[in-house]
Amino acid sequence: MNRKEFRDLASPTAAREAIDSLALEGGIERVSLEEARGRVLVARLDAELDVPGFDRATLDGYALRARDTFGADEADPARLELVGEVHAGEEPDVTLKEGQAVEISTGAVMPDGADAMVPVERTDASSGDKEVLVRTSVAPGDNVMFAGADVAAGERALGSGTQITPRDIGLLSALGIDEVPVRAKPRVGIVSTGDELVRPGDDLESERGEIYDVNSYTIAAGVEDAGGEAVLYPHAGDEQDEMEEILRTAADECDLVLSSGSTSASAVDVIYRVIEEQGELLLHGVSVKPGKPMLIGRLDDSAYVGLPGYPVSAMMVFRTFVAPAIREAAGVPEPASATVTGRLARQERYEEGRHRLMPVGLVTDGDGDGEMLVYPVDKGSGATTSLADADGVVEVGPETDYLEAGEPVTVTLFSPDVRPPTLFGVGEDDPTLSRVLDGLERPRYLSVGSRPGLRRLREGVPDVAVAAGPLERDIDAVDLGGWEREWGLVVRPGNPDEIEGLADLIDRDLRFVNRTTDSGLRSSLGAAIADLAEERGTERHDLVDAIDGFDLGLRAHESPARKVIAGDADAGLGLRETADRLDLGFVPVGEQPVRVLANPDRTEKEGVRELEDALEGAVPVQR
Amino acid sequence: MNRKEFRDLASPTAAREAIDSLALEGGIERVSLEEARGRVLVARLDAELDVPGFDRATLDGYALRARDTFGADEADPARLELVGEVHAGEEPDVTLKEGQAVEISTGAVMPDGADAMVPVERTDASSGDKEVLVRTSVAPGDNVMFAGADVAAGERALGSGTQITPRDIGLLSALGIDEVPVRAKPRVGIVSTGDELVRPGDDLESERGEIYDVNSYTIAAGVEDAGGEAVLYPHAGDEQDEMEEILRTAADECDLVLSSGSTSASAVDVIYRVIEEQGELLLHGVSVKPGKPMLIGRLDDSAYVGLPGYPVSAMMVFRTFVAPAIREAAGVPEPASATVTGRLARQERYEEGRHRLMPVGLVTDGDGDGEMLVYPVDKGSGATTSLADADGVVEVGPETDYLEAGEPVTVTLFSPDVRPPTLFGVGEDDPTLSRVLDGLERPRYLSVGSRPGLRRLREGVPDVAVAAGPLERDIDAVDLGGWEREWGLVVRPGNPDEIEGLADLIDRDLRFVNRTTDSGLRSSLGAAIADLAEERGTERHDLVDAIDGFDLGLRAHESPARKVIAGDADAGLGLRETADRLDLGFVPVGEQPVRVLANPDRTEKEGVRELEDALEGAVPVQR
Repeated sequence: MNRKEFRDLASPTAAREAIDSLALEGGIERVSLEEARGRVLVARLDAELDVPGFDRATLDGYALRARDTFGADEADPARLELVGEVHAGEEPDVTLKEGQAVEISTGAVMPDGADAMVPVERTDASSGDKEVLVRTSVAPGDNVMFAGADVAAGERALGSGTQITPRDIGLLSALGIDEVPVRAKPRVGIVSTGDELVRPGDDLESERGEIYDVNSYTIAAGVEDAGGEAVLYPHAGDEQDEMEEILRTAADECDLVLSSGSTSASAVDVIYRVIEEQGELLLHGVSVKPGKPMLIGRLDDSAYVGLPGYPVSAMMVFRTFVAPAIREAAGVPEPASATVTGRLARQERYEEGRHRLMPVGLVTDGDGDGEMLVYPVDKGSGATTSLADADGVVEVGPETDYLEAGEPVTVTLFSPDVRPPTLFGVGEDDPTLSRVLDGLERPRYLSVGSRPGLRRLREGVPDVAVAAGPLERDIDAVDLGGWEREWGLVVRPGNPDEIEGLADLIDRDLRFVNRTTDSGLRSSLGAAIADLAEERGTERHDLVDAIDGFDLGLRAHESPARKVIAGDADAGLGLRETADRLDLGFVPVGEQPVRVLANPDRTEKEGVRELEDALEGAVPVQR
Repeated sequence: MNRKEFRDLASPTAAREAIDSLALEGGIERVSLEEARGRVLVARLDAELDVPGFDRATLDGYALRARDTFGADEADPARLELVGEVHAGEEPDVTLKEGQAVEISTGAVMPDGADAMVPVERTDASSGDKEVLVRTSVAPGDNVMFAGADVAAGERALGSGTQITPRDIGLLSALGIDEVPVRAKPRVGIVSTGDELVRPGDDLESERGEIYDVNSYTIAAGVEDAGGEAVLYPHAGDEQDEMEEILRTAADECDLVLSSGSTSASAVDVIYRVIEEQGELLLHGVSVKPGKPMLIGRLDDSAYVGLPGYPVSAMMVFRTFVAPAIREAAGVPEPASATVTGRLARQERYEEGRHRLMPVGLVTDGDGDGEMLVYPVDKGSGATTSLADADGVVEVGPETDYLEAGEPVTVTLFSPDVRPPTLFGVGEDDPTLSRVLDGLERPRYLSVGSRPGLRRLREGVPDVAVAAGPLERDIDAVDLGGWEREWGLVVRPGNPDEIEGLADLIDRDLRFVNRTTDSGLRSSLGAAIADLAEERGTERHDLVDAIDGFDLGLRAHESPARKVIAGDADAGLGLRETADRLDLGFVPVGEQPVRVLANPDRTEKEGVRELEDALEGAVPVQR
């Protein structure tokens, strides 16, 4: 086997077939009634007793012999001797003879000799509780639910394959069944490898390149979503013996082992060795992007699938190829809500003739017809945030190299619980905005910066864009309101360097941290430096060149301040609010407006209206 | 308070408002990442670190200073001194100076001094690993993912109210968060009362009218379906002090207490006393059928709702009024799949001007348009089987006294997991049929007997009807096949009474158990007795009168045999197969055909075709 060669890439169909052939079924287990909800029966259950188990009075009244009432009516009641009473939960202590009746409660056992009952409303007591007058005639069986009338012993109750819902639990309870045989959930072992991975909650040494293990927990949650039982194995380093032992243990204990690509070649080597020694390689390399190096086979007696390493890729490949097989094995079909249809929000081109998994987000178009717009999320597969920004995956066949805006597409949601956001905003990162968003139900906001935000708004995808600083006005948008924010230089607590303004960055030997050119803060900084250049009668770029750190800009609004805290810089571009919150010093430079601009077609969308209301409540809105 | 009076019935809307006002929220709890799936965040989570936490090489290649490559190309490569290597998970031990490069792996930390990297494909090693030739020029930042490029410290990560799905778990993992604050599930205490109730799994004394407790388990499963945590309290008898203690304990420990109507008045008395002493009565009596005696209020510090006693009624009232409030408190909205629309399969009349909850079943009409037919399930609210036969509930307003066949209706499914059957059949109960059904995916079969089965098929609701015995031929149906079954008298093992045939039932003093007139077996028995009467030159009814037990017929096919086992009868009408299976004796009387007849409009429906295939495989089909 040569793992570097992918000359004969398998088709996505062949990959699905290979995974389907792995037989992930986990056998049978018995669970109590309390734990049965959602599980899948593996055997037909027949009733072993009658329900009700006795002839049962369905009303409060009198049990009697029907023939004793024949001919009775209001004018000429039948007069019966009262010989006892029976309540629910009591065994009758009397046998009825001709001309006798027994007082009986709803749900009580009909006494021997009685074959019908009369409701109390059609009777009168007489002779001091010794007799009852029956003012109607009844037929045998009237007002009696006979034993087995609901379910009779021997009847088919629930079929094999039934997914147990509350109503089925009702039937099982009625039959006295407190334990049922169900499909065991497929056990899916998740093995994460790589020296650089650290479990969430543990300390991270970023300086040696450690990162938190994202895939293990994401895939584990996906496994449980699909009806499987996820087993997380202890993190294996790059030491081969240790890794082999963990893999073999997982293969021994689970129906399926998933690993996600490690950056270390040794992990792949170990997997190959185990497959070679005691397994079977079904398929290596699939013509799908991402997912090309997918490996499908057997490790000892367990199935094995190797997933890509990048979180978004791993999630998409898992969701598209592996989750359906787990569902099949669990006997729990995919809910219809796991798939939605929509229209592509903007055109999309593809470079190569490969089957493609495209992560997409959803936004409702808000004109009340509930149509869903689908937009590609294109941060790059290394970005974990794409996971949170995307709602699902669209498969695009290899013959497609171009999708028109408006093209209908089918989205497989990452989970049936995923719901599209009520509001989709993009633009500047801002603490006031973040507080406003807190008051909304389920907003999605991507802090892409002011300029990209406005560009996306112009393309018609988001509901709103938030822009800070000098505003381009050539955009067709509805201004929902805004606020002013004070910006300047965030410095060490107490401003020990005695920085007084931008001029110090130019004239003194200070390390500065900038924001990216996408940010509105950077635009205002640029304008302020241009003013300073004019004041000094020099060129803007001369001043910029004199600032140590001007060129390398950070994407997020708190990042420069955090560089100051870390001692990596003397001053960072930022907001007074950020400096205050992080207990840093602040040198004010100016104020800039922040505006919230809505897509004109979406102003009636509920999420947009809620945002408008929240803006009015939360900030001194300027219109 | 007079609990017998319902003069001022509240409207269903008022009942919903009263339940909404109860505030069932369960507070906040912290759960680990592994347990976070499906839970609802109660606080905004901001990133507390950069992802990645370091400047990260995105490819295998060489880290270098971009300006050292300016001008380099294939013809004129830049020659850089190789001063070390960095792998993923390692801290770089070198600082780059002008003209130097470091070999670097994907995911590794960029060394100090480097501001870009070149993929290995664009380089050549030179001078025995001491130098590298770079055949392209790169800009600062090329092939580097900067610290915080994915998520930056201080950025908003997830908003309060987010229902956590696998993708969110991915983001939380990336941020190193291993525990999150979520809404506690509303705790719902379920109190069952009544001396006659027995927990499933325990022994039942039917002779004293004991029945299994259906509502507790059904409602508990419904509570968990709705995102609550169900707490089953020990079964309380009718003793008032014990019941009061259980109620107060439940009220103390839970956010909501549900009880379902007991047949005993003392339970209601206790609830009233607790509400009077330390609670608040919001509402008693609702203008809805079923559900009229619904009671809504507070028990100590907990909310309280009293549900009807009959299982179907309790389930419908819970589903319609209580489940939405639990979902609201849990922060878990109802999935769209919990509601379906369809057309009423047959007309329905209502007697009284009250809001009505109608239990209904679903059947797809099978012509490929996926339209759902909705049919009322009308076994009577005391029947637990209605729970298994019904898929959900339709609300019908008080102004409606008539619904046309074909009228569009909205069905609230008993649970979002409920799926309509693949096949809906009605008719004769038969063991061969039951085996055939075992091979189908998700059939629903109601053993209503041959005659009612044919009537329903004629009304156009079920897909198929199964009829046994002399067949009415005036029905427009497609015969899918059938088989013969041997019927006769099921007697004690070894036939100790030496019963030889029907004549013995007439001529000797034997106790017989019959089937209902709906069953095909009863029809064949009637025909056989008519033949015997002709043979003897007498009237049929004279022979029938001479049979002890002829008139009282049991509904299910095994019930007469079980009466024989129980010693309650000497002979029962039944099948040879039943006798063999239960190790009883059998006296053959005749053979009768069983036919499976399909609705002519449904023959192309997948479930019907599967049934046809299964019939061919399972029985020697006669066409």
